[in-house]
Amino acid sequence: MTTRSAPDRLLSVLGAFDHEHPALSLTDISRRAGLPLTTTHRLVAALTDWGALERDDAGVYHVGLRLWEVAALAPRGLALRQVALPYLEDLYEATHENVQLAVRDGGEVVYIEWLSARSAVGVHIRIGARWPLHATGVGLALLAHGAPMLQQEYCEGPLAAFTPHTITDPARLRRVLAEVRRTGVAVSSRQVTDDAVSVAAPVRGPGGAVTAAVSVVVPITHAQVPVLVPAVRLAARGISRALGWRPEQQT
Amino acid sequence: MTTRSAPDRLLSVLGAFDHEHPALSLTDISRRAGLPLTTTHRLVAALTDWGALERDDAGVYHVGLRLWEVAALAPRGLALRQVALPYLEDLYEATHENVQLAVRDGGEVVYIEWLSARSAVGVHIRIGARWPLHATGVGLALLAHGAPMLQQEYCEGPLAAFTPHTITDPARLRRVLAEVRRTGVAVSSRQVTDDAVSVAAPVRGPGGAVTAAVSVVVPITHAQVPVLVPAVRLAARGISRALGWRPEQQT
Repeated sequence: MTTRSAPDRLLSVLGAFDHEHPALSLTDISRRAGLPLTTTHRLVAALTDWGALERDDAGVYHVGLRLWEVAALAPRGLALRQVALPYLEDLYEATHENVQLAVRDGGEVVYIEWLSARSAVGVHIRIGARWPLHATGVGLALLAHGAPMLQQEYCEGPLAAFTPHTITDPARLRRVLAEVRRTGVAVSSRQVTDDAVSVAAPVRGPGGAVTAAVSVVVPITHAQVPVLVPAVRLAARGISRALGWRPEQQT
Repeated sequence: MTTRSAPDRLLSVLGAFDHEHPALSLTDISRRAGLPLTTTHRLVAALTDWGALERDDAGVYHVGLRLWEVAALAPRGLALRQVALPYLEDLYEATHENVQLAVRDGGEVVYIEWLSARSAVGVHIRIGARWPLHATGVGLALLAHGAPMLQQEYCEGPLAAFTPHTITDPARLRRVLAEVRRTGVAVSSRQVTDDAVSVAAPVRGPGGAVTAAVSVVVPITHAQVPVLVPAVRLAARGISRALGWRPEQQT
């Protein structure tokens, strides 16, 4: 027996789908959602009728087109991405490197857009993928401009290491964040993988608050960070302006 | 009092959001979902806790990042778009015109992706936007390769006119569809607006069934349709191959 509320049960069916599990049978959904099979059957039928799920010929369920249409309205998802895309394309044209747009959710970055040439090697970040703030360029840009309380708590928390170069010392992270605020750009070198460096800049909304970050990720072997900095800053300012930010109005 | 099921009530809250209503107050949601304010309040709270909705500082609700992350898994949404994007970018590079990717939902096309230069004029299609099949290049490509029953019913149904050039005669639509199947490309001239022509080609899935369509839309004043045809066909075949289609295996 379950005492979970009706909305909670329905949302746990949607939550059963993730990057590792984009296609699920009814039994899979039941197990992952922690719901009896009969309940799952009823909820999946309702979600399928509405178009939030789609059932393929093999009887396997996928996320449906109708949910995608509603989710396309998310201001921090596709809506932000649609404003930013022309500037990301310009940045890609100018650099021909991996170009990324990300927002913050708690202590993680969520990638909203990612452009790369078909031939690009190395970085493979899925849209919707998450990564801790301290390890990525976009994460450092977002953390450096976050609320003081967020920064304090994050710096005190455990800082996971992904390479020997990942920042795991709170005092060093604080110095890096101060540097990001001073220069307006975040450089994360070999922190996620041993062979890549990312250069990121903050994107501001109408009120001046940092709402997203844009970055270029390049192989360490031919990284020309000083050359990339102005291009990334320019793209970030372009997106900020398109979102309604006006630098001249800032105090 | 309402006799609607719990899933139905929750989904009606999500369904209250659309392109004309991307931001709603609690009262707006209550009215658009047809639910009492107390019920709406409880459901919106559950959706906000989960991350399907987000509440801004002004108390207005938007679609949330978590829903966008789940919806990014939709095979006919972002997942298709992620496979197709490099080919769409190549097509954009080759033509510098509006490039679109669409799927069919009932008698309509739904635009999944749309690339255009920041300076591009004319066509402004939102991602997630819908349009009737007979008026657009992508729609004709999808309809021409749809099930015979779908084609028969669609041709017999009312065919809305958007310009004097829109196909509204069933017999003419059948001839156009046969031509699309014969040539492998759909040309829709001045059917949506008086000043644009679209050239579209079908995208096939692993089994050979047409699952999407790609198109280029250009101003009628400098449309060079014969030049665009090979580029659009090439992009469609590239996406089809990336999806797992193998022409040599077809009977």
